[in-house]
Amino acid sequence: MTCSSELIIGIDPGTRVTGYGIIKIDNRSIEVVDFGCIRPPPQALLSERYFIIFESLDELMKGYNLHQMAIETQFVYKNPQSALKLGSAQGVCLVAAKKHNLKIFGYSPRTVKCSIVGTGRASKEQLLGAIARRLRLKEPPKPQDAADALAIALCHVQHSSSKLFSHTKHEL
Amino acid sequence: MTCSSELIIGIDPGTRVTGYGIIKIDNRSIEVVDFGCIRPPPQALLSERYFIIFESLDELMKGYNLHQMAIETQFVYKNPQSALKLGSAQGVCLVAAKKHNLKIFGYSPRTVKCSIVGTGRASKEQLLGAIARRLRLKEPPKPQDAADALAIALCHVQHSSSKLFSHTKHEL
Repeated sequence: MTCSSELIIGIDPGTRVTGYGIIKIDNRSIEVVDFGCIRPPPQALLSERYFIIFESLDELMKGYNLHQMAIETQFVYKNPQSALKLGSAQGVCLVAAKKHNLKIFGYSPRTVKCSIVGTGRASKEQLLGAIARRLRLKEPPKPQDAADALAIALCHVQHSSSKLFSHTKHEL
Repeated sequence: MTCSSELIIGIDPGTRVTGYGIIKIDNRSIEVVDFGCIRPPPQALLSERYFIIFESLDELMKGYNLHQMAIETQFVYKNPQSALKLGSAQGVCLVAAKKHNLKIFGYSPRTVKCSIVGTGRASKEQLLGAIARRLRLKEPPKPQDAADALAIALCHVQHSSSKLFSHTKHEL
């Protein structure tokens, strides 16, 4: 995967905020292409919010010739109702990506932190600092959900380029 | 809603089987239009399964001029991981419906049983018998997931046509 130029989109899905971060990898160089957040109006119906996420990702994927998607998949919840909502946002992201023939991989927040900072207990500040260093940015990317999405994309690059990590790649 | 002819699709979403049932209501008469199940290959990737559900519903909605969708929404889970997967299937159904401008309503399994049989503890057989009577079918509809989807559509008709129930309508 790291032998030719590829565009990877990282996604941090959520009903209120869905962060995205697009990076380009070319041999061993990594560069940021775009990042930001999709924020459906909080007063909108749930179905409208999911549709806005779907259409926004669809537009984004039409605009860039993306190859792969890395998405955060959470495995432990205290509240099943929030798992249901997050699941819906995830499902919507997966369908948008599949529509554009992307290969899709899922990573837990802990795996992302481990691969970027070296510990699953890294603080937000540590993670932001590590992202900025890896992407050669003067400042940590903002807002947080976009930074998290870039971290997920970076995590996928690491899992794809290193044999040490490749067995933990989880295709969705 | 019961004053003119309307087509309502009921959906029982699931990653393995998504049941659907379409009914037509015209004043006070109710008739079955179509019902069945979407069964993505179990060995397919999760994202492919969701995409098959999305495309199948999209085709179905293109074929019929549907007005409303009623979908099962579960509110209690023992296993967050299953809530996450079911949430994804639900999200995919919501986006497909929104693409076709349907109004969407959610009902819990208990509410469906209460409105069709009169008790939230009704057995599967009681529910099947009640669906067949309400739809004037010689036999209970099969398979189970399609029957459940018809029950959800019937539940929505009841909640839309009776002032007694209208306050429990939950738009998604």
